[in-house]
Amino acid sequence: MDSIAVLVTLDQNYLPALRVLLKSLFVNNAQDTFCIYLMHASIPKHLLEETEQFCLHHGSALVVVTVPDTAFAAAPTFRHYTKAMYYRLLAFELLPAHLDKILYLDPDILAINPLRELYCNTPLKSALIAAASHSGVTDLSHHVNRLRLGTPENVQYYNSGVLLLNLKLLREQVTREEIFAYVQKKKSTLVLPDQDILNGLYGDRILPISDFLYNYDARRYTTYRVVKGTQGELPNVMKTTVFLHFCGSNKPWQAGYRGRFSALYQHYMQLAAR
Amino acid sequence: MDSIAVLVTLDQNYLPALRVLLKSLFVNNAQDTFCIYLMHASIPKHLLEETEQFCLHHGSALVVVTVPDTAFAAAPTFRHYTKAMYYRLLAFELLPAHLDKILYLDPDILAINPLRELYCNTPLKSALIAAASHSGVTDLSHHVNRLRLGTPENVQYYNSGVLLLNLKLLREQVTREEIFAYVQKKKSTLVLPDQDILNGLYGDRILPISDFLYNYDARRYTTYRVVKGTQGELPNVMKTTVFLHFCGSNKPWQAGYRGRFSALYQHYMQLAAR
Repeated sequence: MDSIAVLVTLDQNYLPALRVLLKSLFVNNAQDTFCIYLMHASIPKHLLEETEQFCLHHGSALVVVTVPDTAFAAAPTFRHYTKAMYYRLLAFELLPAHLDKILYLDPDILAINPLRELYCNTPLKSALIAAASHSGVTDLSHHVNRLRLGTPENVQYYNSGVLLLNLKLLREQVTREEIFAYVQKKKSTLVLPDQDILNGLYGDRILPISDFLYNYDARRYTTYRVVKGTQGELPNVMKTTVFLHFCGSNKPWQAGYRGRFSALYQHYMQLAAR
Repeated sequence: MDSIAVLVTLDQNYLPALRVLLKSLFVNNAQDTFCIYLMHASIPKHLLEETEQFCLHHGSALVVVTVPDTAFAAAPTFRHYTKAMYYRLLAFELLPAHLDKILYLDPDILAINPLRELYCNTPLKSALIAAASHSGVTDLSHHVNRLRLGTPENVQYYNSGVLLLNLKLLREQVTREEIFAYVQKKKSTLVLPDQDILNGLYGDRILPISDFLYNYDARRYTTYRVVKGTQGELPNVMKTTVFLHFCGSNKPWQAGYRGRFSALYQHYMQLAAR
C-alpha cells in the first residue's frame, strides 16, 4: 500500500503538539505508513531532525518543506497574521508535482481511529477540497460568517483544521493572485484568515464530510449528544470518530484544561514523550 | 531483559476486559515483553487460543493454567462465591516453581505507564506481597474493615486488585489449610472474600505501595485531588500513575458509564478490538 501523505504547517511552538498528533496517527494506523510534509519558515534544524527521527522510528517519513521568505513576497499581510496563513491554501505550489492529494491537519488534533477510509475513498471528483462544517453544532456563527464573507445561502462555513486537498485540481484551478486579491479586498473583515479565504473563495467547490467523524469539535460533546441522540454517545464517538479537534483557545496541553477528552489527550502526550 | 510475569484469574465473561488490559500493558511497556499466566477453570479452548494469538501478535506469551475441579476440593465455599476466590491467594501452588514473583492484576485495570519499576525494584524482602490500600481515599470503610476482620490498629486494609506476589516466600510461609480454616471461621463476615482473607491473614506481612501510582481508584479523582493537591491533578495522574483501577460496580465497558477516564478506557477498547 502507498503511504498516506499528510501536511502540517506550523512554527516551533507547535512542535510538541505535532508530536502528539503524529503519535496518535501512528498508533491508530498501525497498518499504514505516512509521509509527513512539514511546511515551515524558521524551525531550527535540530528540532526538524528530532521530528524526522521520531517519524522514522515509527516506520514513517518526514519531508521538510522550508518556505523561503521570498515565496510569498507579494502576499498581503495584516494585523498579527503572517504569510504562514497562506501555507495550507497554497501548499499545492510548494509540494512535489507527483502528489495528487494530501491530508492537511491542524496540530491541535488527535487521531483516535484509522483514517484510510477518508484518505482513499472520499470521492473528491470535481471538488477542490473535502472539509467539514461545524455549523450543525455552532449555528449562530454559521450565519454570521455567511453574511460577513458574502457566501451563498446554501453554502456551509467549513472548518479549515482538516482538509483533504485535491492538489491536482488546485494546481489547475487556483492561483495565488486571486487569493491575494481577495485578502486585499476583504482584509478588514477577515477573522480567521485562512478559514475565511477557504470559505469565501472556494466554499462552493468544497465536498462536505462529516465533522462528527473527521473534525469532531472536542468542546461540544453535549451538543453532538443532543443532535445525534444515541449515536452521539461516548462509546460511539470512541468507536467511529477519526479526528478529535481541540478547537478554541483552551488547549488540552495547557495546565487546568478540563474536558471530556483531557485524560485521553494527556495520555497521548505521555506516549509521545517516551 | 527477562519478560515480566503477570497473573490474571478470570472466567469467560471477563475476556473482553482482559484484552483491553493486555493491550494497555503492551502499548505502555513497548520495551518489555510479558509472560501472561491465565488461571481459569472453564474458558473454552478457542477463546484461550484467541487470547494466545493476541499475546503472540504483541511479542508476548500466554501460559494457560487450567485449574482442575479437584485442585481445591477441600476448600470451603459459601453464598455465591466459587473456588475461584482462592486462585490469586493460592496461585503459588499452581505456578511453575522457577517463578520467584508475579504481578497479579484484576481485569478491570488499565495500564497507562510502564510497570518495570514496580516489578523489578519493589523491595519485597520479607514481605509476602506488595499491595496498595485505598484507605487514604476511603477512610470510613478502612475502619469498618479493620473491626470486621480483627486486624491490628496499625494495619491498613489493602485492595487485592494489584498484588506483587513474593511466590518464593508464599511457598515457604503460607498453607492452603490455614486459608481454608480462616474462611471456615469467618465466612459469615466475609464481604469480598479474597480481599478479606488477604487482609485478615496476611495484612501485617504486606509491603504497602502507593495506590496513586499502582492502584488508582478511577472513581476518586476528586478525592485524590483534595488529598494530594497539585500532585493529584490530571496531568500528573497521566504522567505518573501506572494502573487505573475501575473499582466498584459501574464498569467502563458498560453503556452509560461516566467518569473522567471513560474516553481513555473506551479508546483502549477500540485499540484492543483491531
